[in-house]
Amino acid sequence: MGPLDELAKYFQKMPSVGARSAQRLAFFILSQSPAWVNDFTQALQAVKKNVRYCSECHNITLQDPCEICRDQTRDRALLCVVAEPRDSQALEKVGYKGLYHILGGLLSPLDNITPEVLRIEELVRKIRGGAFREVFFALDPTVEGEATIMYISELLKDCAVKLTRLAYGLSTGANIDYADELTLTRAYEGRVAIN
Amino acid sequence: MGPLDELAKYFQKMPSVGARSAQRLAFFILSQSPAWVNDFTQALQAVKKNVRYCSECHNITLQDPCEICRDQTRDRALLCVVAEPRDSQALEKVGYKGLYHILGGLLSPLDNITPEVLRIEELVRKIRGGAFREVFFALDPTVEGEATIMYISELLKDCAVKLTRLAYGLSTGANIDYADELTLTRAYEGRVAIN
Repeated sequence: MGPLDELAKYFQKMPSVGARSAQRLAFFILSQSPAWVNDFTQALQAVKKNVRYCSECHNITLQDPCEICRDQTRDRALLCVVAEPRDSQALEKVGYKGLYHILGGLLSPLDNITPEVLRIEELVRKIRGGAFREVFFALDPTVEGEATIMYISELLKDCAVKLTRLAYGLSTGANIDYADELTLTRAYEGRVAIN
Repeated sequence: MGPLDELAKYFQKMPSVGARSAQRLAFFILSQSPAWVNDFTQALQAVKKNVRYCSECHNITLQDPCEICRDQTRDRALLCVVAEPRDSQALEKVGYKGLYHILGGLLSPLDNITPEVLRIEELVRKIRGGAFREVFFALDPTVEGEATIMYISELLKDCAVKLTRLAYGLSTGANIDYADELTLTRAYEGRVAIN
């Protein structure tokens, strides 16, 4: 079926959509009303038309600079480094009140994500500008995240700014006997006094 | 972010897309070129505009009646009953050469899928028309599939037509010790002579 297969090909390009789910999604579209499909295509176009990137922090925004960069009530001496815009959205939900810098990914030389591909040079320049008291890395606790933190802190080793990262340890609701070894090692090494 | 959240809502209505993946998909759209998003929306519209349902077998088609129903080289005395168009696509791939009847689902009274919701009455009328030598049920081997076969064969018990269903047993590559009990029971009961 030409048009269905054609549509499925687009779905298959999307993250974590395989051939089978792409076909299911195409059939789902077929089962929807023309009005729904119309509204959906308008929502797709609206994202491309209205969402842009902030020229200061590179977060997504409707206006440049973004609301966060313009907000004078936030702590402008605290900078949070994240990989992607969605990571900053997660931090907003937990009440973070400083500024952001979106790297655009994490170092991963095997996938051709080298320092030049990310917004590292710009970050270092910003920090050396001296406006920040603390730079806080909120990167995934993976090999790539660790490598990115190490690479950037090496570039800043002669700089007086305080560098911090998220705490590593057991997730809420986790079971000690199901935790992987690295998580448990980190939870042990980072153990905290309770009295 | 208004437009992104708006778009994510549409993705979240799709089968097996949760809140988190809907957000990822919205970000994926944002990262694509305007041309890609344009082509994607055109593929969406094309499905709704060009794909229709065959008035004979209720399969999806570009022309009514569909290619299969028009094809005089197929075995027109063999009828395959399937739940959804995608099931017929699977059978086409394994070389089935008869006609189809798409039920539109499987009986599931708890989900309000009663016989009236499905195209059962029309199927029974077709079969009683006497044009078929064999009616072959290719339905999922689930409670709903079984119930649907039982319900329809009950309606046809005074009819001379031969009714068949797919074989149940071990899937290719399965491990006997990992097979669930029902599968193994069915494989045992359906065991086949090899000499």
